[in-house]
Amino acid sequence: MILYIFLIFSLLSSSSYAAVNDFCVADLSGPDGPAGYSCKKPATVSVNDFVYSGLASPGKISSLIKAAVTPAFVDQFPGLNSLGISMARLDLAVGGVVPMHTHPGASEVLLVVQGSICAGFISSANSVYFKTLKKGDIMVFPQGLLHFQINAGGTPALAFVSFSSARPGLQILDFALFANDLPSQIVEMTTFLDDAQVKKLKGVLGGTN
Amino acid sequence: MILYIFLIFSLLSSSSYAAVNDFCVADLSGPDGPAGYSCKKPATVSVNDFVYSGLASPGKISSLIKAAVTPAFVDQFPGLNSLGISMARLDLAVGGVVPMHTHPGASEVLLVVQGSICAGFISSANSVYFKTLKKGDIMVFPQGLLHFQINAGGTPALAFVSFSSARPGLQILDFALFANDLPSQIVEMTTFLDDAQVKKLKGVLGGTN
Amino acid sequence: MILYIFLIFSLLSSSSYAAVNDFCVADLSGPDGPAGYSCKKPATVSVNDFVYSGLASPGKISSLIKAAVTPAFVDQFPGLNSLGISMARLDLAVGGVVPMHTHPGASEVLLVVQGSICAGFISSANSVYFKTLKKGDIMVFPQGLLHFQINAGGTPALAFVSFSSARPGLQILDFALFANDLPSQIVEMTTFLDDAQVKKLKGVLGGTN
Amino acid sequence: MILYIFLIFSLLSSSSYAAVNDFCVADLSGPDGPAGYSCKKPATVSVNDFVYSGLASPGKISSLIKAAVTPAFVDQFPGLNSLGISMARLDLAVGGVVPMHTHPGASEVLLVVQGSICAGFISSANSVYFKTLKKGDIMVFPQGLLHFQINAGGTPALAFVSFSSARPGLQILDFALFANDLPSQIVEMTTFLDDAQVKKLKGVLGGTN
Amino acid sequence: MILYIFLIFSLLSSSSYAAVNDFCVADLSGPDGPAGYSCKKPATVSVNDFVYSGLASPGKISSLIKAAVTPAFVDQFPGLNSLGISMARLDLAVGGVVPMHTHPGASEVLLVVQGSICAGFISSANSVYFKTLKKGDIMVFPQGLLHFQINAGGTPALAFVSFSSARPGLQILDFALFANDLPSQIVEMTTFLDDAQVKKLKGVLGGTN
Amino acid sequence: MILYIFLIFSLLSSSSYAAVNDFCVADLSGPDGPAGYSCKKPATVSVNDFVYSGLASPGKISSLIKAAVTPAFVDQFPGLNSLGISMARLDLAVGGVVPMHTHPGASEVLLVVQGSICAGFISSANSVYFKTLKKGDIMVFPQGLLHFQINAGGTPALAFVSFSSARPGLQILDFALFANDLPSQIVEMTTFLDDAQVKKLKGVLGGTN
Repeated sequence: MILYIFLIFSLLSSSSYAAVNDFCVADLSGPDGPAGYSCKKPATVSVNDFVYSGLASPGKISSLIKAAVTPAFVDQFPGLNSLGISMARLDLAVGGVVPMHTHPGASEVLLVVQGSICAGFISSANSVYFKTLKKGDIMVFPQGLLHFQINAGGTPALAFVSFSSARPGLQILDFALFANDLPSQIVEMTTFLDDAQVKKLKGVLGGTN
Repeated sequence: MILYIFLIFSLLSSSSYAAVNDFCVADLSGPDGPAGYSCKKPATVSVNDFVYSGLASPGKISSLIKAAVTPAFVDQFPGLNSLGISMARLDLAVGGVVPMHTHPGASEVLLVVQGSICAGFISSANSVYFKTLKKGDIMVFPQGLLHFQINAGGTPALAFVSFSSARPGLQILDFALFANDLPSQIVEMTTFLDDAQVKKLKGVLGGTN
Repeated sequence: MILYIFLIFSLLSSSSYAAVNDFCVADLSGPDGPAGYSCKKPATVSVNDFVYSGLASPGKISSLIKAAVTPAFVDQFPGLNSLGISMARLDLAVGGVVPMHTHPGASEVLLVVQGSICAGFISSANSVYFKTLKKGDIMVFPQGLLHFQINAGGTPALAFVSFSSARPGLQILDFALFANDLPSQIVEMTTFLDDAQVKKLKGVLGGTN
Repeated sequence: MILYIFLIFSLLSSSSYAAVNDFCVADLSGPDGPAGYSCKKPATVSVNDFVYSGLASPGKISSLIKAAVTPAFVDQFPGLNSLGISMARLDLAVGGVVPMHTHPGASEVLLVVQGSICAGFISSANSVYFKTLKKGDIMVFPQGLLHFQINAGGTPALAFVSFSSARPGLQILDFALFANDLPSQIVEMTTFLDDAQVKKLKGVLGGTN
Repeated sequence: MILYIFLIFSLLSSSSYAAVNDFCVADLSGPDGPAGYSCKKPATVSVNDFVYSGLASPGKISSLIKAAVTPAFVDQFPGLNSLGISMARLDLAVGGVVPMHTHPGASEVLLVVQGSICAGFISSANSVYFKTLKKGDIMVFPQGLLHFQINAGGTPALAFVSFSSARPGLQILDFALFANDLPSQIVEMTTFLDDAQVKKLKGVLGGTN
Repeated sequence: MILYIFLIFSLLSSSSYAAVNDFCVADLSGPDGPAGYSCKKPATVSVNDFVYSGLASPGKISSLIKAAVTPAFVDQFPGLNSLGISMARLDLAVGGVVPMHTHPGASEVLLVVQGSICAGFISSANSVYFKTLKKGDIMVFPQGLLHFQINAGGTPALAFVSFSSARPGLQILDFALFANDLPSQIVEMTTFLDDAQVKKLKGVLGGTN
């Protein structure tokens, strides 16, 4: 009887043979497409493709800004490819700040693991939503909106953020405005910032023109 | 005048020339990506890419379980690639059973073509929905939920199932638990099944550890 | 010990209590939205919401065209709401035809259950893909393209079609052109059909203007 | 014979009766949901729901910034509901500027209809892509990225923009930073702007704190 | 202090280094997939990938039909790849017509830039929605439905259309029926057109069989 | 000049007035639809809709299974509605286990915050992927597949999981099989478990029939 069962399941099994499409671990060397990277051959996939240890240690914290952002996006963690989720680690020393930024392609949930963080975002209607979060609190930042995080306490803070995309993107406002060759005149015309202010921050951040 | 019309349409035609993107027949030898296989060159596509005869004959029915599942997923029927639909044929001899299983990525509609089938599924809230279906009845199984089909009559049953994905996946519960090298101890801890039960079914289904 | 297990599962159960969102059976009396109808309260849902018997009997076949199309879309079968799949039954007497039509929002797979059917579609590049199908054959029609089915044999044919949407839509070419009040002059200017031809078919199909 | 045809089509017609789901004109007074507004009853829909004349006239151009943005989003043009597309009109007098902004939920294509416009965007990698566009040029701005438009000529410019969403959203950088009650201290910490600069622009734009 | 800021931003910058996935400019020579073309390497992308000038000049207008359609789909304008939007230019001389057609994969918004256009579409319920549009009017055509445009004035008309897909497709009714090798008998059986009418238009449009 | 700027921005502001559609906080009392709950009126939304403190404290841990799962899905945290993300807290005492389960509608990432956890999943091809994770490790579980977590150390473990949906669903295998009124005979036929085993677990978990 055992043999019979075995036969029947072998049969069923053959129908599931091709169904190794539960996941599509990124082949980072293959072609990249609109929906994500090409898939590694299933035969070469192991559990290590689905586990990532790069968030276990703090990022290198700057002594001034006292913040480090360590991503676990599909480029760092290929097992996330096309699964619609990713993470990052946020270390905020005392006085630390994650400056104003957006994720063009994802919503975000922040989880405070240690310390206290003042976090907020601004809506299209220019309403401001911000609050000081304690350990264990979570906060959601809807897709594409400007948001920020600031260490609100007297001790280091640690947070982990999750995104609704394997590639959320990250556009840091000051970098977008001041860390490239966008001419100062254009920055000034489109932001109403003073010329001195623009040139000062371009100097700090390495922007030209 | 005919000539004039011809010219005008030629013009319009040129604008549609590149629009051979109504479909994307799978190039099974090309890179596989999150949204499906790469597309065959349109010039090499023929009607045979859109027709499949593999469901015309019954699958090989086991004498014990008396069931056969014959898939027409994208791997068997490349014309389905990315069109969000696929099918399978289900042959159930007297006493036949399609064991408890899920499709991780698709909802399913079952159509009884011959005989009588008892079919059901269980929701996240642990509610059970099952019924004995007659010839011509259809039943829908929402995505990702455990479900089953049993021949409920004294004659062979035949059904065709349709899925809301070209690659619905198929996870058969007993195979997932007992037909691989997942250690018995882990199976027991996570299912509360007795050791003897686990080892018995591992023996039947070829599982190790 | 049984009691202890019971307690732990009760705990887990509470976390799944709200998760009755595996499905959203249409409340046809509630507001209709872009993604489908509002959901019936889970407590009022039964297995009968997931089973439909309306395809078990042939539709009323016309003595001339000898065809009947019987839909099982969300409006007939509310359990399909938002699950991305639906079906229809196609009865084709000898000489029967399902005229040229499109489904604006879904791909279709046709399964021949009885008889022989000549089926085909035309791509955006104006290529024609058609074939005579036998019992058990399946054919896929990509979304939005003109297609047709004709009884190709000397006996009645029966087919079931599945769609990649709970509401595939159905635009029958002759109805769109000749069964409404679109002025004949506009029909003629936009199709290059002769005035006599347009008026003849408007007469047959009840169109005005 | 005409009668026979009529009968057969009536039959087919009944199957399409419920399929008035090609569109979902917004019922702005009904519940708003994640996929858009509830649908108006099909019987109350007319061609005027699908036509909008609000972009025919220039918006009121400010004498200083010399720009006006006139939207045709779902809230102005209910026929767009859930169709994944919308438009806006952009009037730029000499010296006119559309300041740095994002659309959190849509990509945009700009079409220059009159005059010359310098337009650009900044990527997540802080690369700048900008160019002076002439009449008839189109430019695409990928979803969620900071971008701007400046009249680059000595004459008024007119452009129409299309979005890949019926509700693209619009977050204007200066409004988000300076036109609400986000405390100056937070603005400064998260943007590295000087206190004087922040307070100056808050004064101009009506921000408090 | 400037140095310190620079260090901190360098750190943040490294986390965004891989995030050049705001866009996926089509590599037209690479594999084409269900979600669009493969992406060009970001390092090779320039602003010219995001700008297209092919709509600046009128298409070649036929002296009889007096219409020209000039597309800016992903195949002409690779920067649109996967962004869910595209455009086309429509030139209609006096008496010009864009014949009855569908876009299988996209909704469309038409903007009248010059002249007057009578435009309309037909729903699945066979309702007709058409109107004469003036300069500046916009009209939306829901996905997959038959629609048309006719110059309604005594002067040339110019319109630009936007689509909710980078590859909207274009199926022109007369081409689908009369400009290929679909046998006349099948055309007649599935459209109820007379044999003489079918053969006349096949002759005009180059169809065979 | 300040006045002039103010005027121009007021103008722009009016165009963004309706754009409060960056988010759709769930109105749990309103109609529930396929894409999520209806939206609260923007005027009634505050920062507290975007912050949730329910994961700050451990769930009530059972003394036997020593596990607690505390969800922060849309039903607990309405701000998540339609944003494609949610979370849960996992407390595992020594010997604690989260039994075999699936999430029908979401992929999951697990983050170990304290202790050591053995976690794994089984693919459609019946391959097993499991590993013992340390503090700071993350692991991804693709959508719809059976998976589990076991405390692998001698100290309590704490983990937070994120999901790619605001309503991931949760189907616990033992509950689905043994905690409802699905007849024992059906359970046995579809799982090959022995009658005694099924009845034993039905007894423990409160199942009938």
